[in-house]
Amino acid sequence: MERTENLADIVAVVCRDMQAHLGLGRVADYIPALARVDPRHFGIAVVTCDGRTACAGDADVPFSIQSISKVFTLTLALDRLGAPLWNRVGHEPSGSSFNSIVQLEREKGIPRNPLINAGALVVTDVVLAGRDPAAAIAEIAAFMQARADDPAVSVDPEVAGSEEQTGFRNASLANFLRAFENLQNPVTDVLEVYFNQCALRMSCRQLARAGLFLAHGGIDPRNDAKVTTPVRARRINAVMMTCGHYDASGDFAFRVGLPGKSGVGGGILAIAPHRAAIAVWSPGLNASGNSLVGVLALERLAALTRWSVF
Amino acid sequence: MERTENLADIVAVVCRDMQAHLGLGRVADYIPALARVDPRHFGIAVVTCDGRTACAGDADVPFSIQSISKVFTLTLALDRLGAPLWNRVGHEPSGSSFNSIVQLEREKGIPRNPLINAGALVVTDVVLAGRDPAAAIAEIAAFMQARADDPAVSVDPEVAGSEEQTGFRNASLANFLRAFENLQNPVTDVLEVYFNQCALRMSCRQLARAGLFLAHGGIDPRNDAKVTTPVRARRINAVMMTCGHYDASGDFAFRVGLPGKSGVGGGILAIAPHRAAIAVWSPGLNASGNSLVGVLALERLAALTRWSVF
Amino acid sequence: MERTENLADIVAVVCRDMQAHLGLGRVADYIPALARVDPRHFGIAVVTCDGRTACAGDADVPFSIQSISKVFTLTLALDRLGAPLWNRVGHEPSGSSFNSIVQLEREKGIPRNPLINAGALVVTDVVLAGRDPAAAIAEIAAFMQARADDPAVSVDPEVAGSEEQTGFRNASLANFLRAFENLQNPVTDVLEVYFNQCALRMSCRQLARAGLFLAHGGIDPRNDAKVTTPVRARRINAVMMTCGHYDASGDFAFRVGLPGKSGVGGGILAIAPHRAAIAVWSPGLNASGNSLVGVLALERLAALTRWSVF
Amino acid sequence: MERTENLADIVAVVCRDMQAHLGLGRVADYIPALARVDPRHFGIAVVTCDGRTACAGDADVPFSIQSISKVFTLTLALDRLGAPLWNRVGHEPSGSSFNSIVQLEREKGIPRNPLINAGALVVTDVVLAGRDPAAAIAEIAAFMQARADDPAVSVDPEVAGSEEQTGFRNASLANFLRAFENLQNPVTDVLEVYFNQCALRMSCRQLARAGLFLAHGGIDPRNDAKVTTPVRARRINAVMMTCGHYDASGDFAFRVGLPGKSGVGGGILAIAPHRAAIAVWSPGLNASGNSLVGVLALERLAALTRWSVF
Repeated sequence: MERTENLADIVAVVCRDMQAHLGLGRVADYIPALARVDPRHFGIAVVTCDGRTACAGDADVPFSIQSISKVFTLTLALDRLGAPLWNRVGHEPSGSSFNSIVQLEREKGIPRNPLINAGALVVTDVVLAGRDPAAAIAEIAAFMQARADDPAVSVDPEVAGSEEQTGFRNASLANFLRAFENLQNPVTDVLEVYFNQCALRMSCRQLARAGLFLAHGGIDPRNDAKVTTPVRARRINAVMMTCGHYDASGDFAFRVGLPGKSGVGGGILAIAPHRAAIAVWSPGLNASGNSLVGVLALERLAALTRWSVF
Repeated sequence: MERTENLADIVAVVCRDMQAHLGLGRVADYIPALARVDPRHFGIAVVTCDGRTACAGDADVPFSIQSISKVFTLTLALDRLGAPLWNRVGHEPSGSSFNSIVQLEREKGIPRNPLINAGALVVTDVVLAGRDPAAAIAEIAAFMQARADDPAVSVDPEVAGSEEQTGFRNASLANFLRAFENLQNPVTDVLEVYFNQCALRMSCRQLARAGLFLAHGGIDPRNDAKVTTPVRARRINAVMMTCGHYDASGDFAFRVGLPGKSGVGGGILAIAPHRAAIAVWSPGLNASGNSLVGVLALERLAALTRWSVF
Repeated sequence: MERTENLADIVAVVCRDMQAHLGLGRVADYIPALARVDPRHFGIAVVTCDGRTACAGDADVPFSIQSISKVFTLTLALDRLGAPLWNRVGHEPSGSSFNSIVQLEREKGIPRNPLINAGALVVTDVVLAGRDPAAAIAEIAAFMQARADDPAVSVDPEVAGSEEQTGFRNASLANFLRAFENLQNPVTDVLEVYFNQCALRMSCRQLARAGLFLAHGGIDPRNDAKVTTPVRARRINAVMMTCGHYDASGDFAFRVGLPGKSGVGGGILAIAPHRAAIAVWSPGLNASGNSLVGVLALERLAALTRWSVF
Repeated sequence: MERTENLADIVAVVCRDMQAHLGLGRVADYIPALARVDPRHFGIAVVTCDGRTACAGDADVPFSIQSISKVFTLTLALDRLGAPLWNRVGHEPSGSSFNSIVQLEREKGIPRNPLINAGALVVTDVVLAGRDPAAAIAEIAAFMQARADDPAVSVDPEVAGSEEQTGFRNASLANFLRAFENLQNPVTDVLEVYFNQCALRMSCRQLARAGLFLAHGGIDPRNDAKVTTPVRARRINAVMMTCGHYDASGDFAFRVGLPGKSGVGGGILAIAPHRAAIAVWSPGLNASGNSLVGVLALERLAALTRWSVF
């Protein structure tokens, strides 16, 4: 049923087919460092459980992974707290692009899921765990370097600083969570860690490599590192499927059929369980805040590989 | 990776493990015919793409499939209207148990998805297509008989009648949709067809058999009937995954990892793509309105079969 | 402090000042009979507690009073049920133009107040009281004739019929209320009475005369008829002040400073307690659904008379 | 119509009638200094435009005026900015007890009115006007001393400090407003001023005296100070009528019939236009967060004086 023997060809086809769409969508402009990115970038990388890597386009150009970092801090927080994490954050889709704070109010400070900002702040609070923010940021960066198997992965200080200056909405969410006693660390510390994790810079190649453990039952197939348990890996994938693309999560499942998480920097990480991790990047966003060309590319890739889980 | 050679054993284990939970949850009581069902029923049936059937418990006792019918009318409506159906109904999770009419108002009469009541009414309107309600009801019943390969499948007239007498909330939704011109047939006709489709009585064996085409790319593997296209089958599965269990759809994906659709009669249809269709039934509902023991059974089955798509 | 000795002059000044604005706003067009009304109409009538009447413009041209009827059915329902009416409908502003059904859902079928559609349907249900719709319609019409001291007041059958054909949103609300058991009569009967009360045709002169009891402690000063108690008259005025203009009730209080109720036909009834009842009419509506020129006229009148209660 | 010649008698009657209710309701407990107040306090003071003062009970015991301060900062902000203030904050009731942040999101950072917390933060931002927080706090305190004609009015530093430590929800609102660029000063500065204005301590006698200008067209009748214009005084009263008691504003208008503003410390300031300003205080709150006995007392006073504006 699969045609993955010719993975490099497929990736090249996807990259070629995307050329006609480059520049579509709107680059995030709330931070100067994001606003000045050339919208015509496109990169794709596929890393398979059986050891192959296929890349095309700007697969080695680092970009700001932004919300994609939430998948990795969720992994860390589950490792730290286990299932009780789900008492502090749900795993249901939020049902509306702007619901973040509305539903937070209705649901008494329990965010709907860990992939919306409010939920990610709770997750970051768990990772922070009473330490100095610098220690948590260092832990997250080290985790990403290990997952990407590349010590070059790092935080962009300009982006982190800009987030801190303009992140009033996240500050609002964090204070709201604190009002419901669903943050245990100081608001400013949680925000500092959060803004830094969002400011991680990675290429498609690094990102796909980093996500590979989610395609392989929680174990990194290249070095047998037990990153998380098989059950947790499945659950993280399930949460990505139902909640990974804000209020277009249903549409991503519908069109692509893979668990995935997008970031406002234009990146998307998708997981083909038992097969591969895929990263795409193109800065122009659609109306739902997801990479317009990135989603198109994954839809094409899923059609060619037949990797849809459905 | 699979252990499906011993499918009958697995089904028997699941059935045995559920005995301790029988009677948990709350039977739907808004209709007399549903309220008087014995809460201690439990049935399970698995029908595989490669021709096997495994059943246990009350797998041959018919029950009211209720909202599970929405999956089948969606198939019919897609066949009739094609992709333009998605202009009249979305495919995003609704994000809240009580959002049906709230979001309908905010989104100008376009229901979030075809598996909530508002969306299912639009789908039924498409199936009705200007005909006499009796004709549409007959078409739906014939479709279910064909899918189940059993002419005994029929509508329970007592249930249909009760729904009609107490269905003020659905009447409210239907009028609301009409106010936004998203129903084309008379409100009372749409409601009549809808109440009848919900009143279909089927056993687990019949229901699993009927859903098999969704596990096999839209084609019934037992008779090669082309029920729908491969793309539509995948999309229906995707919608079931993200929207099939009201405001517990994320939890079902998280725990079971399969596309599924529940009904207030206590039934659930789940699809293991490329493998099998599964039907479970137990009347007691959890707080989200889904079969409490049914979800447990599917969670157990998915763990034993490793059929989770994640 | 008052200058009401020259009331006729003031009314003439208001009418003259409005000429520059005639035609502004948008005529309600959901019913043909409303849509074809000339938007350049303007009428005003003031009837005082001490026996004077001052009119200007189209004060004798009948128009569809629409939601203004809710004030009068509220009076009837309070007479029938007394304070327990407030268990079935609140007296709080709804806080949003589109909240009708949203808040109804959140508040379990108890409408926020009797001047939004949902609340008015409950009030009509109380007036209907198990009778034939025709009997209730006759009672309401007779009440309006008595209040206006004019047997010519009647229901416009074309408008009533049009409402019935297009009133899907009201049918939705009524079914929703019934689902919460907050309607006791059949939905179709309640709607029939409601559509007929909204279709009452009255001139400004008739309407101001009809509302006079609310300015005089519940007693009609011209014939000493005890229409309602002083406490109820005050309460009806209070509800008009906080809820009478949908989501612009605060703005009406802010600009005019009098209790008032608008109708989508372009009429407004305002009460100056202990002084007068005022009716204005101009068909063009502002964005909140209230008569644009009507509100301007009342703002001007309140400034000239110093009748603001604040 | 009025019986105010015997004002002292009426106030004594109200005070006596309240004795049976003392201790009802729940004292605000989110700050230690509020939580330890004896719930059995009751005070009332009426100051008339024609120079009389009538007091009873604990009319000279200072309490934390909390949200009542919003009426006075609104007066200051209107003086500073004039009508353009209404571009940054509305004057409509919010329609729900918990809507503060929900509606703020829906309405793009424009609070519904200046008497809910979000709106009051915008008002405080206008009063702050780029200055040092200490300067703005001093201005507000001086304004209150002048209005109360008593230099003893001051801020309770313990309460201000406690608010600062526990005010995460207000910090959330302030950051949210800043995200929509509807705060111009630093969030922490606005919060500091806001927490201090809420921590003003005043007695009923001082508070009624301070509000007298609102009953007299914006002019303090005792010293002819032009505090605000007649139009602004009427508008502030109108906003108090429709928005002064959170989601029980309609009920206050219904029962009392006067513009008023409550504070979580148990105080209420009510205005009888052209007649008097009234302050009551009793710490126990009802479910809507307003002084339970305070509302009862005002209802009784309004009945005895016939001061309802309706």
